[in-house]
Amino acid sequence: MAKTFRVGLIGWRFMGRAHSNAWRQAPRFFNLKANVELHTICGRKPAAVQAARLQLGWQNATGDWREIVSSPLIDIVDIVTPTHCHAEMAIEALKNGKHVLCEKPMGLNLKQCEQMFAAAQKARTVHMVCHNYRRIPAIALAKKIISEGALGRIYHFRARYAQDRLADPEFPLDWRLQKETSGSGVHSDINSHIIDLARYLVGEFKEVCGLVNTFITERPIAGEFSKGARKTGKVTAPDSAAFIGWMESGAMANLEATRYALGRKNHIEIEINGAKGSIYFDFEDMNRLKFYNGADPADRRGFRDILVTERDGIHPYVANWWPPGHGIGYEHTFIHAVADFVNACADGKPVHPTFEDGLKNQRVLTAVEESSKKGKWMKV
Amino acid sequence: MAKTFRVGLIGWRFMGRAHSNAWRQAPRFFNLKANVELHTICGRKPAAVQAARLQLGWQNATGDWREIVSSPLIDIVDIVTPTHCHAEMAIEALKNGKHVLCEKPMGLNLKQCEQMFAAAQKARTVHMVCHNYRRIPAIALAKKIISEGALGRIYHFRARYAQDRLADPEFPLDWRLQKETSGSGVHSDINSHIIDLARYLVGEFKEVCGLVNTFITERPIAGEFSKGARKTGKVTAPDSAAFIGWMESGAMANLEATRYALGRKNHIEIEINGAKGSIYFDFEDMNRLKFYNGADPADRRGFRDILVTERDGIHPYVANWWPPGHGIGYEHTFIHAVADFVNACADGKPVHPTFEDGLKNQRVLTAVEESSKKGKWMKV
Amino acid sequence: MAKTFRVGLIGWRFMGRAHSNAWRQAPRFFNLKANVELHTICGRKPAAVQAARLQLGWQNATGDWREIVSSPLIDIVDIVTPTHCHAEMAIEALKNGKHVLCEKPMGLNLKQCEQMFAAAQKARTVHMVCHNYRRIPAIALAKKIISEGALGRIYHFRARYAQDRLADPEFPLDWRLQKETSGSGVHSDINSHIIDLARYLVGEFKEVCGLVNTFITERPIAGEFSKGARKTGKVTAPDSAAFIGWMESGAMANLEATRYALGRKNHIEIEINGAKGSIYFDFEDMNRLKFYNGADPADRRGFRDILVTERDGIHPYVANWWPPGHGIGYEHTFIHAVADFVNACADGKPVHPTFEDGLKNQRVLTAVEESSKKGKWMKV
Amino acid sequence: MAKTFRVGLIGWRFMGRAHSNAWRQAPRFFNLKANVELHTICGRKPAAVQAARLQLGWQNATGDWREIVSSPLIDIVDIVTPTHCHAEMAIEALKNGKHVLCEKPMGLNLKQCEQMFAAAQKARTVHMVCHNYRRIPAIALAKKIISEGALGRIYHFRARYAQDRLADPEFPLDWRLQKETSGSGVHSDINSHIIDLARYLVGEFKEVCGLVNTFITERPIAGEFSKGARKTGKVTAPDSAAFIGWMESGAMANLEATRYALGRKNHIEIEINGAKGSIYFDFEDMNRLKFYNGADPADRRGFRDILVTERDGIHPYVANWWPPGHGIGYEHTFIHAVADFVNACADGKPVHPTFEDGLKNQRVLTAVEESSKKGKWMKV
Repeated sequence: MAKTFRVGLIGWRFMGRAHSNAWRQAPRFFNLKANVELHTICGRKPAAVQAARLQLGWQNATGDWREIVSSPLIDIVDIVTPTHCHAEMAIEALKNGKHVLCEKPMGLNLKQCEQMFAAAQKARTVHMVCHNYRRIPAIALAKKIISEGALGRIYHFRARYAQDRLADPEFPLDWRLQKETSGSGVHSDINSHIIDLARYLVGEFKEVCGLVNTFITERPIAGEFSKGARKTGKVTAPDSAAFIGWMESGAMANLEATRYALGRKNHIEIEINGAKGSIYFDFEDMNRLKFYNGADPADRRGFRDILVTERDGIHPYVANWWPPGHGIGYEHTFIHAVADFVNACADGKPVHPTFEDGLKNQRVLTAVEESSKKGKWMKV
Repeated sequence: MAKTFRVGLIGWRFMGRAHSNAWRQAPRFFNLKANVELHTICGRKPAAVQAARLQLGWQNATGDWREIVSSPLIDIVDIVTPTHCHAEMAIEALKNGKHVLCEKPMGLNLKQCEQMFAAAQKARTVHMVCHNYRRIPAIALAKKIISEGALGRIYHFRARYAQDRLADPEFPLDWRLQKETSGSGVHSDINSHIIDLARYLVGEFKEVCGLVNTFITERPIAGEFSKGARKTGKVTAPDSAAFIGWMESGAMANLEATRYALGRKNHIEIEINGAKGSIYFDFEDMNRLKFYNGADPADRRGFRDILVTERDGIHPYVANWWPPGHGIGYEHTFIHAVADFVNACADGKPVHPTFEDGLKNQRVLTAVEESSKKGKWMKV
Repeated sequence: MAKTFRVGLIGWRFMGRAHSNAWRQAPRFFNLKANVELHTICGRKPAAVQAARLQLGWQNATGDWREIVSSPLIDIVDIVTPTHCHAEMAIEALKNGKHVLCEKPMGLNLKQCEQMFAAAQKARTVHMVCHNYRRIPAIALAKKIISEGALGRIYHFRARYAQDRLADPEFPLDWRLQKETSGSGVHSDINSHIIDLARYLVGEFKEVCGLVNTFITERPIAGEFSKGARKTGKVTAPDSAAFIGWMESGAMANLEATRYALGRKNHIEIEINGAKGSIYFDFEDMNRLKFYNGADPADRRGFRDILVTERDGIHPYVANWWPPGHGIGYEHTFIHAVADFVNACADGKPVHPTFEDGLKNQRVLTAVEESSKKGKWMKV
Repeated sequence: MAKTFRVGLIGWRFMGRAHSNAWRQAPRFFNLKANVELHTICGRKPAAVQAARLQLGWQNATGDWREIVSSPLIDIVDIVTPTHCHAEMAIEALKNGKHVLCEKPMGLNLKQCEQMFAAAQKARTVHMVCHNYRRIPAIALAKKIISEGALGRIYHFRARYAQDRLADPEFPLDWRLQKETSGSGVHSDINSHIIDLARYLVGEFKEVCGLVNTFITERPIAGEFSKGARKTGKVTAPDSAAFIGWMESGAMANLEATRYALGRKNHIEIEINGAKGSIYFDFEDMNRLKFYNGADPADRRGFRDILVTERDGIHPYVANWWPPGHGIGYEHTFIHAVADFVNACADGKPVHPTFEDGLKNQRVLTAVEESSKKGKWMKV
């Protein structure tokens, strides 16, 4: 009979909703190798976490994350708190032999990531950083195409993660804009995603030269902390970043992350150019992958607009969803991640992106920050 | 304390999965006015329906739909069987005072639809035909824009529902290609959807002239019925249809439905042109609406590519989902329909599209069939 | 030594500018089989035609078209007047042994077209109707792809020619909206273009059922004819038209022409679906052709976005223009038409679309008008 | 009576064809303030230049560029030779009081550009660098929108000029890949274009950090120089380049130029994000500009797809071309440049981009090269 994994979730806001949904939905749409029980959700505000428990479908609630990471009733710890909490929670969970799924970015800085990875190596349990975008069917298809060599030697990896909410100076200061809680702001929050996709699709970074920047340095303090008159606070983390660089394969890299691109809502744009073909992806059309095949007859070459929704195993992950053309959405990337994670836990095998991937990602983030500080190129 | 509706679902295949998901998910993402209990699922094959019960999250299973429609434990009957079963099931359920959600097309023919609507009027319960596409946020936004008069007098309603699976002559004969089970094949299956959208967005049809057609008249019999050697059977229902016509408002209509458009996977394409603006929608980019505003300054007019994912009540239905640009998918249209339906049941108020809408839709379908048979224009 | 053709152009407004440009440019970019001399331009207003002569590069000007069609100094007569003048001018020119290039639609009605074609057959000179869109490189590529059988059996030909200038009720009455001068208004003006493309790409029409319509029946009289107060006049020709039908090959046809589609500027949209592939074209992106190849591997099928700008004979007509990606524009379609026409004159060979094509086109136009009048299907 | 400018053109290949066409066409479509005479074309190969003279429409031909720059019969000198010839020719022409139109990049290096600008200042004639893309109607509209302040404070200028012909290692070595003839290869050839557009649209660069790179360092020698067996030669100039930087306005810049992006034919992609709006342009759809207006109502914001083809002065330059939606092509950008240049010569007024613009452009190019060499940020 199939094993059952009891899950403890630490955190309950945006990512708590996305992860809870994934834990609920994965067993409905995928034939997992183990059962899943939404055992306990954790949050510091009792009323809020109780409401979340009911709304999101968890059996129990607690206000103390240490209960989750230490309870013998919990097999999997899923961490969706602000970044500064990840390391302590994850390390404790790993020490207690839990499988750990941790939101990105893995830690606040290189040191935390190194400690987390060391703990993971020692624990020998399954560990994963939730770079959910790897499991967009279109990205998984891109990986397949590249792995087959259909692009040939890669010349360019180019990506931009652009949103627009900070373009409004009235958008409030939140933990994502504070160094102590977020590490490196927009840089670690969303640049980390396209760094992850670069590493997944094209390989390791060799050296980088970049800038991290804060366009607006003072913002109103987010609702929950303000009293009476509207106060402002210092933005202490970058709100934008860009870098160029070289990958070990010899590919030129150009990555940019910003929340100042009006009209771009969740525009994760990737272009990869190789000697034999090119690939283009934009998350705002997440069910599509554009593929240019240099081997097509000369008079009919063009970017193919592939609707990545074919079943019967033709396209990754979509076999169990809906018919062709009946697209999926953002939340499905988490369901796919959870499904793969559960199967890995059942098999006792690693599942990418591991904590080692998270650490390597942080090395790139840190190298860009260093480069920005010193005004010169940095080896990763 | 909130009321709880116990739901009985008749059918468990494609639409059974989509509806079950909607019943499970609606209470997680919407603050419904009543609770929902996935009480009983019904199907004729005991093993399959038991498996479906577990996979889709229902408490009980039965092989007899009459149990569902008559059980005092059931408040809402959701019918997702092939079309020829709808009328009998729905009428029986209505007679027993159930709220009824019925998949489209409502019935096999005009007579069935009239009987169903009569039963609904008598029952005074809530009834809805599941034209799920009305509740795509982009379509709901289109409705809002049109209702505000932003398009002015409507000149053109133009739509095409195009898929491609029948372009392959080896695609097997299934109930959708048989007159007895489907009514009018592709015409009633998918033309009904764009007729519904036309009625929703622009109003009633006045007269039509069209054709229903069968490109491939003999097909292999679908897997589950074939024995030994591969047998073929007669396609007795249309596999394509097109019509032009006039709407009561004076708008010219042009609608087409086909499963022979290679490369079009679920291409529900709609264009509406008015004296002040135009709207364009394509389901394959379901999170977008294109809107041309004739009142924009002359040098900067152009179709606006609206990503219909703004929260805070800006865009319909998306308030409870994800941040801007984090799109939703096909299944969400059912969740929205179920959410509205549950609220209507709680309020005891009608919810569109009602059985009256289903009947009016059938009148258009029938008029097109008649027109095709007689080779002339038909009043609706 | 190469022969020189002396050209006489009748008309000098919009089409006069486009044709003059084509006569000037064709020899600059194509190695024609004969030289071309812009000999005489003709118009009824002496000052205007003199200005046009200078501006457009003609050697002589005249006010009398009979001079052009009868002069021994003229080899080629190019007719760009309003439609009602075509037949008389073309027939006279043909009688005098001229090669004739005539703007579309060929004539006012079936009778005129028959007479014109009869005159052309008798004359044994070269005759061409200027359906310039055949010679868009993307359309010529579509023709090549279809001719190779790459689409297989054609199921659907679907086209819409949509513009928006009549959506404004203040747009003035001009000759195009008068029956006596235009024949059938928007129907003959632009529906004729997509009928031509249907015939070019897919073959002959068998039967049709359609409507011709006038949305706005009274309009201000065009500037040049109004006196003092703004007068209105009766719109006597259709300003919109739509029809469905069957082609001889068994393809279903759906064509629509309108000038009431706000935001559509010169939207000639064509989709052709076959058993093996599909093609999509939109004139507003005239340098592109979308091609779906059903034979591509299942996981990487998608409409290819072909930029039809490859040189070295890869793409039709573009060899002599600019490097890849350096697109051409509207006027180039006329240059290509003139280049092919001149070469045909030099060779004494027919060049499509001939007057026979123009006649067949008119048969479709007329059948749609008849269908509209009688409310039933008509054989073409 | 209007003055006549007699033009001498030095060079006759690709750019010679584009410029000749512009000189011929500008007076046909624009009411220029002076007449234009295509007086003399110059090239070193007598037969080729004679053939070019006939094909391109010049009155005389010469093999000696000094004749052109010194002849009293010439008023305007148009230089379209490889880059290394520009400085000497332009300076000589300026010394002789000619108006000078010079292809980009202006010179081989900073020194040459300084000398050229000094000569221009001394000459007091009209001088222009042919960055033709400024006069794409869509770019001119972007300029207008930005100048009006409709984007607000600019956060990002992002551009990529991508082509694909060098992705093939067999593409031969030509003067553009040699340092002595091209200056800085792809960097000066096409990066200069997007630097020009950045300066035109957003202002001056302050500091940059970038790389210039050569992916393939050995290539077959171009046809015309090879003998017997196919020889290869050293690529001595960059074939790709990328840089990030800051503009004086505080905008972050990210520019990249490559000929290794398979499928990108002439992909000049520009995105500008400001506090109030954004702009997007892609040359492969050159008749369109995308404009996001943050001031639109919250529920209907989206990039407007503006077809920049409206007449009556609504859109820049298109008044004299064709009706809305009847797009123009690559060659028209040169016609617009020539038209503006001729009018400036007639008025004796400067016309952008001047030689000062060319010099400032070179400063950016040089700073990027320096940055690449030194591995650090450089002030411009």
